[in-house]
Amino acid sequence: MPPAATSPAAALPAGRPVRAAPSAAAPELRPTSITGELPGGLLAAFEAYEAALAANDLEALAGFFAPGPDTLRGDAAGLLVGSDAIAGFRAGRPGVVRRSIRSLHVRAIGTDHALIVAENAPVAGGAGLVTQLWSRTAAGWRIEAAQVAASAPAIDRTIWRVVGTPLVAGEAGGTLAGVRVAVKDLFDVAGFAVGAGTPAYLESATAATESAPSLTALLRVGASVIGIAQTDEFAYSIAGTNVHSGTPPNPRVPGGLPGGSSSGPAAAVALGQADLGLATDTAGSIRVPASYQGLWGLRTSHGAVSRDGVLPLAPSFDTVGWLARNPELLRAAAAVSLDTDKQLPLLPARFAVCTQTVFAAEEGVQAAFVAAVDRLEGSGHLSAVEIVSLDPLTRLFETFRTVQAAEAWHAHGDWVDAHPGTLGPDVRSRFAFASLIDEDEAGAHRIDLAEARERLDAALDGRILLLPSTSSTAPARTSSGARIEAIRTATLSLTCLAAIGGYPAVSLPGLSVAGAPVGLSLVGPRHSDLALLDLAAGLAAGLEG
Amino acid sequence: MPPAATSPAAALPAGRPVRAAPSAAAPELRPTSITGELPGGLLAAFEAYEAALAANDLEALAGFFAPGPDTLRGDAAGLLVGSDAIAGFRAGRPGVVRRSIRSLHVRAIGTDHALIVAENAPVAGGAGLVTQLWSRTAAGWRIEAAQVAASAPAIDRTIWRVVGTPLVAGEAGGTLAGVRVAVKDLFDVAGFAVGAGTPAYLESATAATESAPSLTALLRVGASVIGIAQTDEFAYSIAGTNVHSGTPPNPRVPGGLPGGSSSGPAAAVALGQADLGLATDTAGSIRVPASYQGLWGLRTSHGAVSRDGVLPLAPSFDTVGWLARNPELLRAAAAVSLDTDKQLPLLPARFAVCTQTVFAAEEGVQAAFVAAVDRLEGSGHLSAVEIVSLDPLTRLFETFRTVQAAEAWHAHGDWVDAHPGTLGPDVRSRFAFASLIDEDEAGAHRIDLAEARERLDAALDGRILLLPSTSSTAPARTSSGARIEAIRTATLSLTCLAAIGGYPAVSLPGLSVAGAPVGLSLVGPRHSDLALLDLAAGLAAGLEG
Repeated sequence: MPPAATSPAAALPAGRPVRAAPSAAAPELRPTSITGELPGGLLAAFEAYEAALAANDLEALAGFFAPGPDTLRGDAAGLLVGSDAIAGFRAGRPGVVRRSIRSLHVRAIGTDHALIVAENAPVAGGAGLVTQLWSRTAAGWRIEAAQVAASAPAIDRTIWRVVGTPLVAGEAGGTLAGVRVAVKDLFDVAGFAVGAGTPAYLESATAATESAPSLTALLRVGASVIGIAQTDEFAYSIAGTNVHSGTPPNPRVPGGLPGGSSSGPAAAVALGQADLGLATDTAGSIRVPASYQGLWGLRTSHGAVSRDGVLPLAPSFDTVGWLARNPELLRAAAAVSLDTDKQLPLLPARFAVCTQTVFAAEEGVQAAFVAAVDRLEGSGHLSAVEIVSLDPLTRLFETFRTVQAAEAWHAHGDWVDAHPGTLGPDVRSRFAFASLIDEDEAGAHRIDLAEARERLDAALDGRILLLPSTSSTAPARTSSGARIEAIRTATLSLTCLAAIGGYPAVSLPGLSVAGAPVGLSLVGPRHSDLALLDLAAGLAAGLEG
Repeated sequence: MPPAATSPAAALPAGRPVRAAPSAAAPELRPTSITGELPGGLLAAFEAYEAALAANDLEALAGFFAPGPDTLRGDAAGLLVGSDAIAGFRAGRPGVVRRSIRSLHVRAIGTDHALIVAENAPVAGGAGLVTQLWSRTAAGWRIEAAQVAASAPAIDRTIWRVVGTPLVAGEAGGTLAGVRVAVKDLFDVAGFAVGAGTPAYLESATAATESAPSLTALLRVGASVIGIAQTDEFAYSIAGTNVHSGTPPNPRVPGGLPGGSSSGPAAAVALGQADLGLATDTAGSIRVPASYQGLWGLRTSHGAVSRDGVLPLAPSFDTVGWLARNPELLRAAAAVSLDTDKQLPLLPARFAVCTQTVFAAEEGVQAAFVAAVDRLEGSGHLSAVEIVSLDPLTRLFETFRTVQAAEAWHAHGDWVDAHPGTLGPDVRSRFAFASLIDEDEAGAHRIDLAEARERLDAALDGRILLLPSTSSTAPARTSSGARIEAIRTATLSLTCLAAIGGYPAVSLPGLSVAGAPVGLSLVGPRHSDLALLDLAAGLAAGLEG
């Protein structure tokens, strides 16, 4: 079959090897096809735009896009709306690889508009495609809308460390047959070493001879491992960034952080690259990315799922859990992983709200949370929600983070000391803080923690605490360090409650602020995981109804 | 940052979880933004189109695209030109996954045209983007051009079996530092089993403890393995299809076969997902995909590169070689892999053409080949090209394929016998043929082969044979079995010459027919690999000049 796209009549470099193709600014650029009359100046504008791209001339590039809030530019990562957003995106990327134009189709629309569809051939291989709506303005031809495509890489290293077809096959049949699991790079996977988001750690790690029991439970019922997914370094962050592998995308919030530390499994599930994320939640590492990306996430009761074969961060709080796009799969994963005999019912389900947890969130999240609770009460999905009073969140968080840090240092301090300069600045600063905690201080905080936990138990008294999963929607990747740190503190003051209590917590994708998702969290009594999931599914249905 | 794409004002399901989002046909679809005046009937047409997509109603979908040769539809796999090509594409795919519309931007252009840019949210996760140029016709609104994007999968299983970041790191530094190698799934890679394009074979294979020497040679000079790439089953095909993992794309010929059996490494290199393909060539398995995809490929002199740790097909012909986008990398790989002391110069280089090999090719390829030779002679890159006479190609091919089949059966017959129903029909039929060759017949053909080789040596007499790498450009995936078989026979009658002679052969991307690439092959005396590559690079420069 002659390829439809590359006409023999074209005086373009179609028949030439890519390496020899002249640049887009070559003199002979002629359209492969034209419908209507070729508008004057259009091709020159297109060529000049390609030249500006090749030079990554940001100013020139910005000039080619029509100014204003209606200009559009979309690619696989999402749609940017407005010339400012487009210019901001360009400023944050290194430019495009040199490419030649392989075909060029012009569709004139009247005299002042034209659609250009062009295939390009990057010198680095692959093929690109561009669709642009050009309009003639007093200042010349400008792009009003563009969609851009490039060949995908073999692997998105921001999401994955290794991927297979599958990487580890599950047993035949079973309730999770066909389910593709993204395993956070803290779990033993037979045949692979644990990297913990830290290449230098991976380098000296040895391959596991068997998979972690929490993974084996899934494999046994037919799920397969599609890949080992990235994590923030040693899972000691909730941002979802990693200086080594980069920041995974957040498919629900273009340009937004994915949330961490289970950033890779979350992005994989949100993108449909996996169905289930097998992850850990110490301080909020499942619930934060679930909240930011519109996913379901479950942090299990502390100790309810084996942590054997899982790299620890802070064992007093570390839990295994899952991320999924729907509650049914989350429940199925939990059901085969938890000891169902030890699971407790929640009958009658009693709910609580703590105003402190509402005010810790940003205004939009507060409003969305209150509206959701109102709506669920109005529709009868929630009844008799009680207001409870808890210890000051700032104090709870301080206690939590000190014990967490002491345990993190215990787990990884020797390694961190032996590998200066390896960690990214945020995780490094956390370990630096951790290194300064002496045994007396840690001991005092452990006592505080035990007491805080008792008071939490008493205040909640078997009720299910409803709260926003995070204090905000996904912050922009370009947020200042100060803003990220402020969001971290506010969000951890919410998520640490389940960690302190050893409680299970579900984050369901029920809220939204300005189109970005935020999770609604349910924190239940210890070992009420499955009942909590069932209640959460009911509430989600109520929010959708 | 509020996500640019999802305005809070939109009455779209932006704020709802994906699973609950109403279908595109929901009553409340309203644009997120409009510039100009919303043309009557446009939204209804858009909704009806989405509904037809959801139902995969091929007839309705075809009706939405403007009829004629100018209609365009592009996606990551390439650009389709003409409504027939678009309808043909649709007929060959299962339809799109159910999705909701997350944002909808309308740009009216006069009264009869409009651009629609819409983000969608597939229920299976990820995000999609569509740009459509609609025009009002007597029959209603029709799409004149569309670009479509969907989230990429974690791994393209048609190309890869497993991918890492990297999968195996090379030693620090070295001449190939930074080079990403796609390893054909016939080579031992430490820690992984060989699958040979056959899942049932992989299942009972054990992980290699060390990598094949041909791979180690690359790792030692800094190259890293990015992944293990797919092959036709047991490498016993040149089509580039695999019933288990599917057919890799051919980025140079949308809808075209990639060529095999090194289909995965070739597609990976052509797409820029890898820089170098480590592959094998028994009958043409490097040169055919190189030819179809506009790549450089080298089949080395028989025995010049160790085949230890490489699954055999037919040891009398099996060779190791490489695929790359440029001759420099190909030469660098060859230089570290071959015993340079045994390499012979080609001074003076004498060239030969055999008219039989020209006429074995399709007309367009004949014309392109002759024109290229004329041009190279005209420019002084080639001089004194002599016409040589060889044995009838059909007879040479028959001798080759019988010995190949006998050896393939010797290598894999027991396994094939023990696993009925596992192989795809084409490879199965080849093994069935192979199973019928008795020792007497094989012995007779071996004698024929040795004699044929002597006559080839005598006829070529140290000259470099120039010939088309393949008899055609990449055939369409939808070609009939008869056409594929005819092309296979014609192409193998060209490629088997190097196999019979144990000669090195370079395929360079110098020819093109109707925009699709075809390789120009240089077949040189045994152990002239490096000199042949240098000559080939010179000829390629001549063709470009």
